[in-house]
Parts: sequence; structure tokens; C-alpha cells
Amino acid sequence: MAETPRIEPGCGAGCSDWQHVSPGTGPTMSFMHESRAQRVAFGAGQALEFVRAELSRTPSIRPLLIVGSAGTTLAAAISADLPAARIWDEVIQHVPAEIAERARAAAGDADADAIVSIGGGSATGLAKAVALTTGLPIIAVPTTYAGSEATDVWGVTEDGRKITGTDPRVLPRTVVYDSMLTASLPVPLSISSGLNALAHCVDALWAPRANPINAGTALEGARALRVALRALIADPRDSDARDGCLYGTYLAGVAFASAGSGMHHKICHVLGGTLDLPHAATHAVVLPYVLAHNTPGASRQARRLAVALGAQTVAPESALVALQTLRTQLGAPRSLGELGMTEQDIPVVLPQILHSIPSSNPVPVTEQSVAGLLRAAIRGAEPIVKEDA
Amino acid sequence: MAETPRIEPGCGAGCSDWQHVSPGTGPTMSFMHESRAQRVAFGAGQALEFVRAELSRTPSIRPLLIVGSAGTTLAAAISADLPAARIWDEVIQHVPAEIAERARAAAGDADADAIVSIGGGSATGLAKAVALTTGLPIIAVPTTYAGSEATDVWGVTEDGRKITGTDPRVLPRTVVYDSMLTASLPVPLSISSGLNALAHCVDALWAPRANPINAGTALEGARALRVALRALIADPRDSDARDGCLYGTYLAGVAFASAGSGMHHKICHVLGGTLDLPHAATHAVVLPYVLAHNTPGASRQARRLAVALGAQTVAPESALVALQTLRTQLGAPRSLGELGMTEQDIPVVLPQILHSIPSSNPVPVTEQSVAGLLRAAIRGAEPIVKEDA
Repeated sequence: MAETPRIEPGCGAGCSDWQHVSPGTGPTMSFMHESRAQRVAFGAGQALEFVRAELSRTPSIRPLLIVGSAGTTLAAAISADLPAARIWDEVIQHVPAEIAERARAAAGDADADAIVSIGGGSATGLAKAVALTTGLPIIAVPTTYAGSEATDVWGVTEDGRKITGTDPRVLPRTVVYDSMLTASLPVPLSISSGLNALAHCVDALWAPRANPINAGTALEGARALRVALRALIADPRDSDARDGCLYGTYLAGVAFASAGSGMHHKICHVLGGTLDLPHAATHAVVLPYVLAHNTPGASRQARRLAVALGAQTVAPESALVALQTLRTQLGAPRSLGELGMTEQDIPVVLPQILHSIPSSNPVPVTEQSVAGLLRAAIRGAEPIVKEDA
Repeated sequence: MAETPRIEPGCGAGCSDWQHVSPGTGPTMSFMHESRAQRVAFGAGQALEFVRAELSRTPSIRPLLIVGSAGTTLAAAISADLPAARIWDEVIQHVPAEIAERARAAAGDADADAIVSIGGGSATGLAKAVALTTGLPIIAVPTTYAGSEATDVWGVTEDGRKITGTDPRVLPRTVVYDSMLTASLPVPLSISSGLNALAHCVDALWAPRANPINAGTALEGARALRVALRALIADPRDSDARDGCLYGTYLAGVAFASAGSGMHHKICHVLGGTLDLPHAATHAVVLPYVLAHNTPGASRQARRLAVALGAQTVAPESALVALQTLRTQLGAPRSLGELGMTEQDIPVVLPQILHSIPSSNPVPVTEQSVAGLLRAAIRGAEPIVKEDA
């Protein structure tokens, strides 16, 4: 399991220079990678201008506008141009199938020729559900750091079960990032959502389709998120910080879509779906425990992550230290207990979690190791990197 | 022109930590970005397996195989499977129009259903010329570090003039990287070709569509190329070094395609087309002069490049120092004079160069500054960063 550190001569023990760590995810590079076509229009205060331009390129004169609470003003401005636009503002977490059905019907009734989603992951998710059956192109305007806008993953919840899949039709054709739309996002939610984005970056490092290309994207995303989230907590009105969060969020989404779901996302998916824990906060709590679990088998990735997270050394364990420092600085949620999970829930979720964690996970999981991880996360105990996995 | 360095508190003067430099290309992030759909299959010794799989996915049973000298064995192995495959091995630098026409006719005669190119930039270039008019999908197997396989740029030479353009049809659907196919590339050619790839990374930092996303790709490409080229000169049989060169080449091509041609590529394009200087070596010589010229107006980009190239400080001027150190270590060509250019050639190329350099170049060009740059490059004089541009 141990890898020989690929540090170049001249880089001493305290060296944290990014460029001294080999780019590969393993001693020999062998991988498949797939990049997806997407446009990104990025600029504070420019969302209306960008959406107008994209609707005109599409071209669309009868868009269905799927609008969360942060998108009301923008949606009204878009509608002012396009009288045939139809506004849909019934947006609920996890995309209930019944709402997806009604939104699809509304798209049909309105003879919609495109979808514009303005909101967090739930608005983007509903837009994807409509695109999945109608094939309509999506212009996504995210107002949180959920990152769904950069992926081809869709999800719909029916009878308490979330069904997910991937389909090229649901990947938004264009993403419009305007950090002014995130200015009203409360700080605690910004932090949870930002740490959810950071979790995309970290989990991408050992997900089933991890490769050097998506690792580079994930690590640049982690670096940007760390810098921006720290600036945000120092001054929530810092527009550069809000820009940086969206930039990091986009890279996180691209890396996640490319690498797939790793151990972290599989655990959070089961906790969210079965116990109805809050999405972003669950990710924010679980991440360090998964990083601690996987570090012994992913020393190269952990070393690069350590640098991205501002650690002063490239020792693999430094990534966890840097993540915990960041989480403390941000006042992130610390335990699944405070989110409502108890030890009695462990037997309920354990079989599903064990079943879903990829066999390619760098440190194989056992019933015992996952139960231990969950117990520690419920209590908020300090995660520990085991010497030998 | 001067930018305030965005160094975080705690990062002293000697700090070279990548993560302390802001991700943006300017104080406020505002940009458009377009990513393209492409598959990459990467693995030493796996080219035949990958090409077979890609032909079967396409599906294709009658590919036109466009084959440079390094591709003969692989082409024969592909043909052994597919009796209807047609081999085309007349590959000439700069893609003469007459050869493009005959290759197109051969594709038609053979009722080809795909193109597989195996070779350097000239083989890829011919494949693109055929795809441009036929719409056939390309599977590209590069054997040098030209990087054309990652771009939608085509070029054909007629009556001594190279006409270039961009078209989505010429972007290879899949790129197959197999470093064993580069094992026979002579070291001097590997170095020139690798520095050509590095020039894609550097020029992308100030090209017309430069943005934080393609800058991240370019800088990771620069970092990988620096590490790999140094390892290659130390041991030309080092397969990890050959892998790293191809990995860096791919990122360089992606960044270049995304950001567009900057000052460096405009100069080299005119020198190559008008004076028939060797392509890769010209890039290898010109790059430090363009970096010196642009550094005063691109301090943020230069600072990040300095880190990627292994500099010990993040001062903007350090990028040039690091590039020159690398060029010396690699024994790179040093002057346009040794490639055959003389001062008498300057008036011939100067008007074309001045006409073609983007107005967005970070330090505006003048007749005097470009003539001075060319004179210095002809002599191989040490390039100097001017205090004030």
C-alpha cells in the first residue's frame, strides 16, 4: 500500500512546493478521461446580460424559468424581455417526482424551447429532471456552491427513494456565474455549501474514474475554495471571495462529474436519502473522516491535497490537519449528532453504505471500519489517520 | 499596469507556495470559457488495444490510417484486424493542399468511415484537413509533443501560404497517448517539441481568451513538462518522463485551444510560414523573449508561471529566470540565427507580425519593440524584463 514519495532532489523534508510532487495518481500513468462540452459565462453583476446572450444564441424565446428564492429578481428581468417565458417557482429539495412531472407538463403546455434554472442544487436538479425527458437545453444560473450545474448527474425522489442517473442531455449547455446572486446566501449556509464543493474535490481524488487530469482540476478547485472560504468568513461582503467560491465550485463539479462518486459521496448519499440529514452539512461533517480513512492508501493524492489546502509540509497526514484547520477557521458543523443522527441509525444505513462504496477505494472498507467512522462522526470525535490501513 | 500582489498574510518574501497566489487573471473575475468534448485514452504500450476499442465504439471497419514514420508498426497491426483499412503514409510538414486533396479523395475511394492518425503534428494536421471536408471522426495517436490533437485548429499550405482556421469537426473525438511510440523520438527533437508544448502553456496565459480555467490547465501543463523534460534529459529511456511529457502536452493543447493564439504563436507562425524556419525549434527560441516582453504587464500570470517552473520566489521576473534555467539544462536551441534567420529578414516579417499580435497583449507592441525582440533572438542575446513597459 505504501508508495515511494516522488520528491525531486533538492526538496527537503519541509518542502511544500506543489511542483515537486509528481502529477500521476500512481507510479505509472494509465487512464481514460472524458471531457464534456460546456460554456461558462462568469462575472459579478452580469447574469442578466449573460442569460440574454445565451437565450439569443440558443435561440430561445419561450424559456421555462425554474426559479429558487434567490432568483426571483433575475427571473422577472428575463421575463420582461420575453413575454412568452414561463416562471416555475415550486422548487423542493431532492426533486420530488410529482413536481418533476408537473414541471415537465408545464414545459409542454408553454411549448418551452429552453430551460433557465436560477437557484441552488434543487432548482438545477428540477431543470435536469425536465431536460431528461424533454431534451430541452439548460442555461444554469447557480446561487449556491452545490456544483450540480457542472455535471450530467440527475436525481428524482419517489416514495422516499432518490433515483439517480447520468445522461448527457441534463448537462447544462451554459453555466452563468454571478457572485452578486450569492451575496444574500447566509454565512453558515455558504460555509456548508462551500465545504460540500470541497468534498467534490477531495472525493474525486480516489473516485472510480480518478485520473491525473481530473485530479488537477480537483486540486485547483480545493485550493481556490480554501482561499475563498477563508476570505468569506473574514468578510462576508468580500466580492472576490464570492467569486472565488463560484470558481472553485465549478472546478469541483467538473472534477466530480469526471471522476465519479467515491466513498464520501456514497456515504452521504445514503445518510441523506435514508435519514433525511441536511445535504451540505452532512458533507461538511463526513469529509475529514473519509479523508482520514483513505489517507494510508492514497498518500500521493493526500500529499497534493495537503499543498492545495495550504499545509506547510507534503506529508500525507498534513492534508487532514489542513482540512481540520480550515474547518475550525470556518466554524463548520462538527458532528452528525448535531444534525440528528444517533448510533441507533448505524445498523439501518450500514448495509447500504457497504454495498455502495466502490471496490476501487484506496483503503478497503469493512463493516467494522465504516461503523467506527460513523460512530466517530456522530460524536464529532477527532478523525485519526491509521498508521497501517 | 502594475498589479498589487495578492499574497496572503503569512507568506513572506521568499514564499513560493502556489496556493498563496490568487487564481484570477485580474483583480476581478470576469470571463467566458468553453470546454470541448473529447476522450483521452492514456497508457504506455496500450495504443493498439485503445485504438481497437475506439474503432469498435465509433464504429468503424474501414478507417483511413494516416501514418507518419513512428506509426508504421501500429498501423500494420490495426490493418491486420481490419482488411478494409486503408494506409496513407505520405505525410509532409505544414499539410500541402495538394496532399490534402489526394488524401480526401483516397478517403472517398475507400469509403472510409473514420480516420486514425498516427504521427506528429503533420500527420494529425493531414487528418484534420480530411475531416474538415468529409466530417469523418478522428482518432489521433500522437508520437510527438505537438499538441494539435487537443485543438480544433486546422491548417493547409497552398502557394507558400498557410491558411488556418478552427472547426469543431477537426477536433479528434479520441486521443490515444502511448509513450512507447515516443521512445524513438531523438532527444533534441523531444526537447524542441516539449518546449513547443511549453510555449502553448505560457502563451495561453495572455492569449485573447485567457481565463482562470485555462490558466489552471496551462500552469499544470507547464509544471508537468518542466518535471518531465528534466527527467528525460537525465535519462532518455525514462518511461515516466515520456508519460509526463505526453500528459503535459495534452494539457498544453487544451489550454492553447481554449485561450487562443497569443503574441508568441503569432510571431512563430509568421517566422515559420514566411522564412520556413523549423517549427518546434523556432518556438523553443522565441519563448523567453516573448515572456520577457510581456512580464511587466502580466505580473500575476508570471508569478504563477514562476511557481509552475520551479522558481524559488514568486517575483514575476522569476518566471523568465526559471525558463532560462530549464532551457540551459535541456540544451535547447538558443538563437534564430542558428536556425537560419538573419537581420535582413526582419523587414520582411515585421509588418505581418505587428498586424497579427492581439490588441489584448499585456504589453502593447511597437515596430521598435518587436524589431528589438527579433534582433535579440537572432543573436541569442539574453532576454531582459524591462522595468517599465
